[in-house]
Amino acid sequence: MKILGIDPGLERIGFGLVEKQGSQIKAIEWGLIQTPRVPIAERLLILSDKIDELLQRTQPDAMAMERLFFAKNQTTVMDVAKACGVILVGAARRGLEATEYSPPEVKLSVVGNGAAEKKQVEFMVVRILGLPSAPKPDDVADALAIAVTHAMRVRG
Amino acid sequence: MKILGIDPGLERIGFGLVEKQGSQIKAIEWGLIQTPRVPIAERLLILSDKIDELLQRTQPDAMAMERLFFAKNQTTVMDVAKACGVILVGAARRGLEATEYSPPEVKLSVVGNGAAEKKQVEFMVVRILGLPSAPKPDDVADALAIAVTHAMRVRG
Repeated sequence: MKILGIDPGLERIGFGLVEKQGSQIKAIEWGLIQTPRVPIAERLLILSDKIDELLQRTQPDAMAMERLFFAKNQTTVMDVAKACGVILVGAARRGLEATEYSPPEVKLSVVGNGAAEKKQVEFMVVRILGLPSAPKPDDVADALAIAVTHAMRVRG
Repeated sequence: MKILGIDPGLERIGFGLVEKQGSQIKAIEWGLIQTPRVPIAERLLILSDKIDELLQRTQPDAMAMERLFFAKNQTTVMDVAKACGVILVGAARRGLEATEYSPPEVKLSVVGNGAAEKKQVEFMVVRILGLPSAPKPDDVADALAIAVTHAMRVRG
């Protein structure tokens, strides 16, 4: 079972593809989608096309995405929520189930502690996936953590 | 010039199509798009398809949409923001420019007072468009007000 984890954003969207085989979870590919600074509707269209390409190329069986929470900058959060809508439609159009996980849910699944520090999450993701080092930037590491969370929660 | 006004939502999306000819603005059609209570990704996909149908059928030259602001129920606002993202992509995919207006901007354009009451906006929309009575429900009246706002702000 291939799971695509997404750390949503408008400017930078991290993704991480993992494969679950029995109790083993391995990383297949990870990276960053970026969008240019054009008006929002046009930018969302570019994102929509890039997500379609990613789904077409990687053929995941499920998608897992970080659930947004309210940060200080509310305008940014609203724009990221718009991007989430576009990403969710991309998944639904391919019949993919998309599950959203909050940051505490990710921490609880990966570290066993919903209040774990970012560094601990990173450490465990590297260990679970057997990577030589933590993927950079943070958006990508977060996307892999979300994919791992879904992999640990579903029956493979 | 045909302008499609949108009052965004996840469950209920008001729309209102107006045509601007010189200084005249007339209403062509208005109504409500509704989505069933299914999981969010699927629901957004249904919305995406319904918006595409609406744009295909009505062939507007521009879209105007209410800009979201933070209400008490933050979860609802986030879901509506996701819907906005999907609607904006629908516009961009057809090369339509989409403009967002805040409620005070709509009030200022339609009534001349950014703090006007909802009833005053409704009264002026009915008057400007020469309608026999206020369109119902509120989502539809709001969508027409947004379309009128854009019509009054652009050179036709």
